[in-house]
Order: sequence, then structure tokens, then C-alpha cells
Amino acid sequence: MRSFKSAETTTEILPVIRDRWSPRAFSAKLVTTDLLLKLLEAAQWAASSFNEQPWRFLIATKQNPEEFARALACLVPANQEWARHAPVLVLTVVKDAFTKNGKPNRCAEHDLGLALGNLSVQATAEGIVVHQMGGIEPERIRETYGVPDGYHPMTAVAIGYEGDASSLPDGWTKESELAKRTRRPLRETAFSNSWNTPFFES
Amino acid sequence: MRSFKSAETTTEILPVIRDRWSPRAFSAKLVTTDLLLKLLEAAQWAASSFNEQPWRFLIATKQNPEEFARALACLVPANQEWARHAPVLVLTVVKDAFTKNGKPNRCAEHDLGLALGNLSVQATAEGIVVHQMGGIEPERIRETYGVPDGYHPMTAVAIGYEGDASSLPDGWTKESELAKRTRRPLRETAFSNSWNTPFFES
Repeated sequence: MRSFKSAETTTEILPVIRDRWSPRAFSAKLVTTDLLLKLLEAAQWAASSFNEQPWRFLIATKQNPEEFARALACLVPANQEWARHAPVLVLTVVKDAFTKNGKPNRCAEHDLGLALGNLSVQATAEGIVVHQMGGIEPERIRETYGVPDGYHPMTAVAIGYEGDASSLPDGWTKESELAKRTRRPLRETAFSNSWNTPFFES
Repeated sequence: MRSFKSAETTTEILPVIRDRWSPRAFSAKLVTTDLLLKLLEAAQWAASSFNEQPWRFLIATKQNPEEFARALACLVPANQEWARHAPVLVLTVVKDAFTKNGKPNRCAEHDLGLALGNLSVQATAEGIVVHQMGGIEPERIRETYGVPDGYHPMTAVAIGYEGDASSLPDGWTKESELAKRTRRPLRETAFSNSWNTPFFES
């Protein structure tokens, strides 16, 4: 659904990509298990190096408030402030080595990103919003959930329905919520022939 | 477009996610610059930690065969074998630190994955196939393109139109091309309450 947060693109792209953004205001509406299943199913069909699927997900929902509180406590305090209003939290973990030969998987974190890219797209199609966070307490996650050696916590994902930005406290969270989304021009991102030689003119 | 490579899912997901796979056989058809622009535009609207957009892309197309050959030579030999038939190669690079404060960006590789997740979805919607590779020669990329300190090459992406699997030489590439896609069941991926306690029954 196009909104002031929809990307202003130089060429037409899919609405599920154009309209995705990362809100901090969530409504109280719960996400059903059926919808969560769709999101995780989408995630798991991402590509991964040697089909390792190095991603693991720890899921906590408001349907189980005690469980939700345990997950929330694994975020850095600044994220807890707003993420407490989301109905779902997912903590993400990656496996460090390939299962088939025990060698380090250089692409593990990257491949988690591919999976979460799918999850975000599916979520947007379902009218669900997603806010990913790097700000977690990895050791707390490890202890709380018994994450074994050979895996490491990576990010957290707040999932739910868009709320009312005016419900946010004044300050950077509210400001960022009301700001337009911006990106570098592609000429500073996509090169050809040599570094910093733009491939596209835009 | 549903094919024998479409994911057999436990719940309905978007066709652009369900039908994506990573072929090794490419047709000779070129990809236009307009379509490449759509793919890269989709990539750049991905989320990233503090909107750093740590991704950079080095693009080589068959419209410029000499440039394509330089990029191809940056893949490990096993990937060169089949990727030489793709009309586009993209070498991906990430920035190690945040621009705003110079601190290490723990999420840089992960966020590249988010961008490539978008790129894959947009490609599938355009009838284009994408095969991502971890098998690159990072130092060769650095030298060939003058990748500066503070950035590191991460993956390569072959982009084009699906070709005829029978054109592949016999062996593991052909076998994998003709195999059904598989994933771990979600009960081994998505947990709740503690490690290895399934969130979903499927």
C-alpha cells in the first residue's frame, strides 16, 4: 500500500519492495501462527551457500507474554523501548560452520540476510511490518535459550502491524518514523570496470 | 512460473519466492540495462543497520565481452565453468565500518544479503534467474577493480535467463540442475522457549 514511506524510485519496482519500511510504532493487533508460518516458510526457501540454511529463529509472541518478556530482555535498552509494543519478536542465530564438512561458513550471516529478505517481502505482501535490529545482547540470548557452541546470535526482528507514529515519545524514534526514506544514488553503489566508475547514470 | 523447481511449501507463499531457484544453465539472451536498473534499484531499498547501505556492486555484462571476461576471472574455476554462459556477472563488496562513526559494522555482510534478497525477488518477477556464489577470488577482485581498504569482496551473482539443463556437462552441475529443491523442516529451524523446541509442528 503506497504511503509517504514508499520508496521514491528511479524505475518501477515491485510494491512489496517499494512499500517496505521499518516502523517503530506497532498496533496491539496480534499476528496469527498461520501468518507467522507463511513468513518463516518464505524465509527458508532463500538461497544459501551449499544449501546449508545456516539460519535459526527463536520466536516469541504476545500470545505468551512471559515468553515475549524473555525475548524482549535480549535487546539493547534503546530497542526494548519501542519493540515492547510489537506482538512478535524473532531472535536470529547463525551456524558458524558447514554441516557437511565442519569448515567455516563465510556466507552464514549473509545467507541469514537472504532469508530475512524473503521474510520481509512476504510480510509486506501480508500487510505486516518488520523492523530488524542489530542491537541485541548476544550473550543473554545464548544463556536464555541455550544457544550451543558453533552458533552465534545475530539480529532481532520485531514483527506486527503498523501503529500510530504519534504514540511514540518525542525524540529520534518519532523523528525517524516521520521522515521520508532515503538512499544513496545508484551511481555511488554500482560500478563497472573500476571502483567508483558508475554503471548507471542515475 | 511454477515448474518442478518451485518450492513444495507447507503453506502458500508468494510465487516470486516459491519459484526462485539458482540455475547453472543460462540462455544466450542478454539482459537490458533497464532491467538491470530495476534489479539494483530493488536491492538498494533493502533495510540496513543505520541505513548504512554497506553494499557495493561491480557489474559486468556480455554487452562488453572484455569487461565480462575480467569479472569471470574473479570466480573460482568451478564457477567459471558454468557462469561464463550467463550474460551478467555482479561482484559484491561490503564496507567494513559505519560511515558515520568509523565503528565496525557487524551487520555489513548480513545487510548485503538483505539487498540481494530484494534483487532476487525483483529478478524472479521479471522472468530473470539469479545464481549467487560464495566461490570467488577476493584478492583478484580487489586488484582488478581497485577495491580500497575498508571494503571486502563477498560474493558473485550470475544473472540472466534460464537455459537448457541438457546443455550442461554430465556431473554434479547437471545432477543438481535436475534435482528437486529441498529444505529442512521448519521444526528444526524455528524454536521457541529454548533451543530445539519447535515453534511450528511442520
